[in-house]
Amino acid sequence: MNIAIAQSGGPTCAINASLVGVFKQGLLTEEIDAIFGSINGIEGMIGDELVNLKTIIRSNEDMELLRQTPSTVLGSCRYKLPSYEDDPEVYEKIMKTLTTHRIGIFIYIGGNDSMDTVVKLSAYMKHVGSDIRIIGVPKTIDNDLPITDHTPGFGSAAKYVAATVQEIIRDSSVYSIPSVTIVEIMGRHSGWLAASTCILRANGEEAPHLIYLPEGDFSAESFIEDVRKEMAKHKAVLVAVSEGVYDPGMEEFQSGATDVFGHKYLSGVGKYLERLVADKIGCKVRSIELNVMQRCSSHICSKTDIDEAERIGRHALRAALDGNTGMMMFFRRVSDAPYAVTIDMTDASNVANLEKMFPAKWITPEGNQVTDDAITYFLPLVQGEVGIYMKNGMPTHFQRPLQMR
Amino acid sequence: MNIAIAQSGGPTCAINASLVGVFKQGLLTEEIDAIFGSINGIEGMIGDELVNLKTIIRSNEDMELLRQTPSTVLGSCRYKLPSYEDDPEVYEKIMKTLTTHRIGIFIYIGGNDSMDTVVKLSAYMKHVGSDIRIIGVPKTIDNDLPITDHTPGFGSAAKYVAATVQEIIRDSSVYSIPSVTIVEIMGRHSGWLAASTCILRANGEEAPHLIYLPEGDFSAESFIEDVRKEMAKHKAVLVAVSEGVYDPGMEEFQSGATDVFGHKYLSGVGKYLERLVADKIGCKVRSIELNVMQRCSSHICSKTDIDEAERIGRHALRAALDGNTGMMMFFRRVSDAPYAVTIDMTDASNVANLEKMFPAKWITPEGNQVTDDAITYFLPLVQGEVGIYMKNGMPTHFQRPLQMR
Repeated sequence: MNIAIAQSGGPTCAINASLVGVFKQGLLTEEIDAIFGSINGIEGMIGDELVNLKTIIRSNEDMELLRQTPSTVLGSCRYKLPSYEDDPEVYEKIMKTLTTHRIGIFIYIGGNDSMDTVVKLSAYMKHVGSDIRIIGVPKTIDNDLPITDHTPGFGSAAKYVAATVQEIIRDSSVYSIPSVTIVEIMGRHSGWLAASTCILRANGEEAPHLIYLPEGDFSAESFIEDVRKEMAKHKAVLVAVSEGVYDPGMEEFQSGATDVFGHKYLSGVGKYLERLVADKIGCKVRSIELNVMQRCSSHICSKTDIDEAERIGRHALRAALDGNTGMMMFFRRVSDAPYAVTIDMTDASNVANLEKMFPAKWITPEGNQVTDDAITYFLPLVQGEVGIYMKNGMPTHFQRPLQMR
Repeated sequence: MNIAIAQSGGPTCAINASLVGVFKQGLLTEEIDAIFGSINGIEGMIGDELVNLKTIIRSNEDMELLRQTPSTVLGSCRYKLPSYEDDPEVYEKIMKTLTTHRIGIFIYIGGNDSMDTVVKLSAYMKHVGSDIRIIGVPKTIDNDLPITDHTPGFGSAAKYVAATVQEIIRDSSVYSIPSVTIVEIMGRHSGWLAASTCILRANGEEAPHLIYLPEGDFSAESFIEDVRKEMAKHKAVLVAVSEGVYDPGMEEFQSGATDVFGHKYLSGVGKYLERLVADKIGCKVRSIELNVMQRCSSHICSKTDIDEAERIGRHALRAALDGNTGMMMFFRRVSDAPYAVTIDMTDASNVANLEKMFPAKWITPEGNQVTDDAITYFLPLVQGEVGIYMKNGMPTHFQRPLQMR
C-alpha cells in the first residue's frame, strides 16, 4: 500500500514537522511502500501532481532541516472541495489519482477548512464503498480549532510574538517623551495569539499594558480612556490588538480615501487605533504590524510545538493504519505543570468550518487585559528551543527540489 | 577620577554591548572610581540626571544580560547641541555636571548626530582650558558613517533582516498562483541594510530577485519591467526595497487622500510599489515593513557584532585614558577571509553630520541588484550566535531599575 500527504491553508512553522512525523512513521511501517506528497494541497490530488517523498527527503539531515523550515514544503491551497452533489467530477478525479497510485491512506494537514475536505472525502469513500482512509492533522497559528487543547503552529507563533513584543517594549522606552506603541497581531476572528502576549508577565514585564481581543467589547471611547489611564502610570504604553477587533468607526476611517490609482485605502485596526490616539491624545504614537513573520519565524520556534507537531503526524498515520477514517487528531491536556498532553481523535465534522474563541472567563471585566489563568494555559506551549542549523550566519532551510518549484 | 557614559540616537541591538565594554574597562582601570550613566543621552548631562552604574550593573550576569538586551538601557535622545555662540548656557550646565561629579572622561555612543556633539563638546573643553576628554563610539543599524568599515549594530540588523527575508521567501512561495512580495527595509538615505539581503545568495537562495537602493536610479517604469521579467522566471518574486528609495510618483500617491481625522495618508515606498504592481500588473501582491524589529531583534543578533561593539567600547575608554579627545573610534578591516578588524580613531569631525553611501560599484548596471563583492563585504558581519539566556521560553532582558523609568 502507498500513502499520500498534503498540506493546506496558511503557512506555519510546524506544518513541515507534521509532514516529517507522517513520513517517519511511514518509513517504519512495513506494509507501506511509497509515500507521496501532493503538490498544493488537495489540488495536487485533483490534478495528479504527486511527488515521491523518498526521493526528496533523503536523509536524517533532510528531516531535521524540514523540521526547522517554515511554511509548507509541498505548497498549499485555499481550495474548498465542492459538495459531491454539485461536482462529482472532482471526486472522481481524486479517486483516479488515489487508485492509479495505489494510495490507501491520505493524510491532510490543515485548518478548519481542510477538515471540511476530510469530512467530504471520507464520506465519499464510504459512499462508493472504498476503504481508503482520510485523516486530518490540525495546524494553524490562530489556535481557533475546537476540541483540541491547542493547534500545532500556535506555540511557535506565540513564542515569536512574545519575544518580539518584548523587544519592541525595549525599543519604545528610550525617549523621555510619552509615547504609545500599538502592535497588531494575527488571529482572524479569535484573539488567542494577541492574548498570548500576556506570558511576558511571567518574566516580570508590565507590558502589554492593554490587550484587546475580538472576544471582548471594544469602543473607541473606552480605548482612549484606557490609554490615558496607562499613560498616567507609564511613559511608554504598549497596546496589543488582535487583527479581528472591530469598531464601527473603522469603516468610516477606511471609507473616504482612495489613492492615485483609484484603490481604497484599506488599513488594519492597528493603523486605526494609531490615528485615534494621534487625534484624541496627540502624543507620539506608532503602530506595528507583525505581518507574515508571525507564521514563518522558525528561527525562534517553540521546541514543544515542533516536537508535538511531529508527534501528532506520527499518530495520524497510526490511526489510519488502525482503520480509522474521517477523523482529526487532537491534543488533550492532562496537566499544566508538569505539562503533559495525550493525542486522541475526533470526528472531523466536530472541527470542520467551526471556530473556537478565546474564553470570556479569561478576559478581565474591563475587557482590556487577560487573567493569570491564561498565562498558565499559554506558557507550556512556548517552551524550549530547537537548535537551528546555521550556515554563513543564517538559518538553513530545506530547499525544495527544482521539479517542485 | 570618575567617568560618564551616554547613549544616543535610534536604538540598536549592540549599543548596550558598547556600554558594557566601557564599563568593564572602567572596572579594570585603577585610576577610575565611579562610572556614571547619563539618562537620555546628553540631556542627562545638561539636567544632571546621572546614575551610578555600579549600583545598577551588579554582576557578570547583569553584564551578560545587558549584552543581549536591545535598545539603550540609559535611554536616548535626539537632542542636537546648539553652537556655543548661540547658547553658552547649555555648555555651562554640562560643565557643572562634569565638575560636580569629578568626571574626567565622557564617552558618547551614537550616530553622526552624536559625533557632532563630540566635536562641539571637545572644542568647548579646549576653549575653556579643561582637560576633560570626550570620545565617541559609533553605532547605527544604517551603517552610514564615514571612515569606519562598518558600524556596531549593523551586523545584528543585517542578520535579522536576512533571516526574516528568507522566512518570507518560504512563506510567499506556497500557493500555485504568481505573486510579488515587497519587503521595505530601513537605512534612511543609504541602502546598506537593504543591500545586505544579498547574503542569502551565499546559502543558495535566489531571492531577493530585485534589490532597490537610494544610491541607484529608480523609475516606476523600469521597476514594473523588472518585476515582469522576474515573474517570467519565478512564481513568487521577492523585492527588497530600501526605505530611502524615491520616485516622484510617490508624492502624487500620497498627496490626495486624507483620513476621517483630516490627516494625510503617508505611506512608505513599499506600499507605493505594492500599489504600482497591483495597478500595472494586477497579480497577487503584498508589502511588508520590517519596522523597528530591524533594530531591536536581539534574539537573533550577530555574535561578531555584539563582541565588536563591546570591544570598541573598551578601546574608547583606553583612548581617553591615553589623553585623546574629540575622536571617534572606528573599525579598519584588515582581511575579509579570515575576517579581521583593528580599532583605530579619527577626528570626530570627519564623521559628524556626514553619511557614507552604498558604493555605486557594487550596484549592477541595471540598478536592481548588488554584486558578489557586496556579499564578501557583508558576510563576516553576521557571523556567530550569542547564546541567549531564556526564561519561561522567552529571551531574558536586563530590566532597568525602577528609579530609571
